[in-house]
Amino acid sequence: MVNGSQQALDLCARLLLDPGDEAAVEEPGYPGAKQLFLAHGAKLRALPVTDSGIAIDGVSALTKLVHMTPSHQFPTGVSMSLARRLEWIEWARTHGAVLLEDDYDSEYRYSGPPLPAMHSLADGAGIIYIGTFSNVMFRGLRIGYLVVPKELIEPFRIAKWMADRHSPLVEQAALADFLHDGHLERHIRRMRRLYKRRRDVLLEALDRHFGRRAIVRGDAAGLHMTVRFSGAGDLQARAERHGVGLSSTDIYYFSRSVPNEFILGFSAETERNLREGIRTLVR
Amino acid sequence: MVNGSQQALDLCARLLLDPGDEAAVEEPGYPGAKQLFLAHGAKLRALPVTDSGIAIDGVSALTKLVHMTPSHQFPTGVSMSLARRLEWIEWARTHGAVLLEDDYDSEYRYSGPPLPAMHSLADGAGIIYIGTFSNVMFRGLRIGYLVVPKELIEPFRIAKWMADRHSPLVEQAALADFLHDGHLERHIRRMRRLYKRRRDVLLEALDRHFGRRAIVRGDAAGLHMTVRFSGAGDLQARAERHGVGLSSTDIYYFSRSVPNEFILGFSAETERNLREGIRTLVR
Repeated sequence: MVNGSQQALDLCARLLLDPGDEAAVEEPGYPGAKQLFLAHGAKLRALPVTDSGIAIDGVSALTKLVHMTPSHQFPTGVSMSLARRLEWIEWARTHGAVLLEDDYDSEYRYSGPPLPAMHSLADGAGIIYIGTFSNVMFRGLRIGYLVVPKELIEPFRIAKWMADRHSPLVEQAALADFLHDGHLERHIRRMRRLYKRRRDVLLEALDRHFGRRAIVRGDAAGLHMTVRFSGAGDLQARAERHGVGLSSTDIYYFSRSVPNEFILGFSAETERNLREGIRTLVR
Repeated sequence: MVNGSQQALDLCARLLLDPGDEAAVEEPGYPGAKQLFLAHGAKLRALPVTDSGIAIDGVSALTKLVHMTPSHQFPTGVSMSLARRLEWIEWARTHGAVLLEDDYDSEYRYSGPPLPAMHSLADGAGIIYIGTFSNVMFRGLRIGYLVVPKELIEPFRIAKWMADRHSPLVEQAALADFLHDGHLERHIRRMRRLYKRRRDVLLEALDRHFGRRAIVRGDAAGLHMTVRFSGAGDLQARAERHGVGLSSTDIYYFSRSVPNEFILGFSAETERNLREGIRTLVR
């Protein structure tokens, strides 16, 4: 048990990376992982995300650790294909590397069958599975967890003890009760219906107002999708002047980013707000 | 705000120590600091604790960081004298070193006037002050804090953000209310009276049953004292056979430890238990 997925990543970096080691990350990808690995002195290799998930072609034999978000890639929302998952597992096995399966957003899936976690596919070998309760509960709660190969349990236990002894017990006890009594399952079921309605409203509004000028990715799962608007000039600044906040994907790219590509989160907005936002945007 | 004093120490080590750097610690001293600095690749210098606190003589000009517990040295319970505090502050100023003032146990003082924190004596220059609520509240609560020189605020903020974003908000909000409404102050006042009675009972029992065969240190403050029993053979094993648990100071020494020196915590025991324990011990 750790303080959210960020501490899980930090413990992995502390135990598995030495300065100068090579680590691979998704491009575009989660800044929390990139900044952390750089702070640990790692050399980063950015691997592009295709429609099947993080590409395996560009990986080097020197890479010791790969950070990936297979359920709902951050930020694109792409779900890694079964074939790609198996390729990565095979690659990690061959090279003795570790895959960090950061499953930050696996609970909400709206269409298509859920794929098995890489951790289960590989029977745990070479995979560190990272989960968090921040997304399904609330972000002020700092409870995440790691599932590590058996031989790493003891080093991780000691590293956590040295870092901050243990995570707060009151929240862990409350969460355990919440789980045991079935509330979390009910909560996720209820939220899945609610979020799906909001997602559908957003997709519908995008389709009606933008049609083919809006290219949507990653809408099959999670709490956000990415949308690329074509031929729109500097959409973000103009939208902001009219009260619509847009979150660009810029900061998730290492080098060249994609113009007018945005993260559209739908879980925390009313259907009415989502409809009005898109209407304002098209105007 | 951090997850207890252990995370405060870890952030200090991460930001202020490079592998091979020299750090000084108290002998005997807190294992949580020693193990952590070693894990960060530091070379440790152990400085003996005298009746005025951690000795300054043996410190080297290369030392970058000194860990100290001036209010109630752990484990001896010695309180650092004003003169020694000023010497250390002057030394740190001259050498551009940092003193970690670990004030884990400053709230309970039973006799003599409280000394000003080194942090206030030095007006914050060269001192990082570490405080915790674990001792005055309960250990399952992981809330501690750091007061760092102005120029270090930003690096510490970033390091904490990378390590685990932030500490849990629910407990922080509850603790803030508890503080603002004056409950913490009342709680400490009430506990000080209770702990003082227990301490007095323990001192009295030691005096009656052991007299000069028990040498007591560090009873002016905190939740424990250290006691050295003379001419007693292997007291610990024999005490355990009779149901009295004794916590040796062995593990707090680097090299030679003091035979039959024990930490006697009195805050969590009833007066009756304390009296009976000492009676059993003398038998």
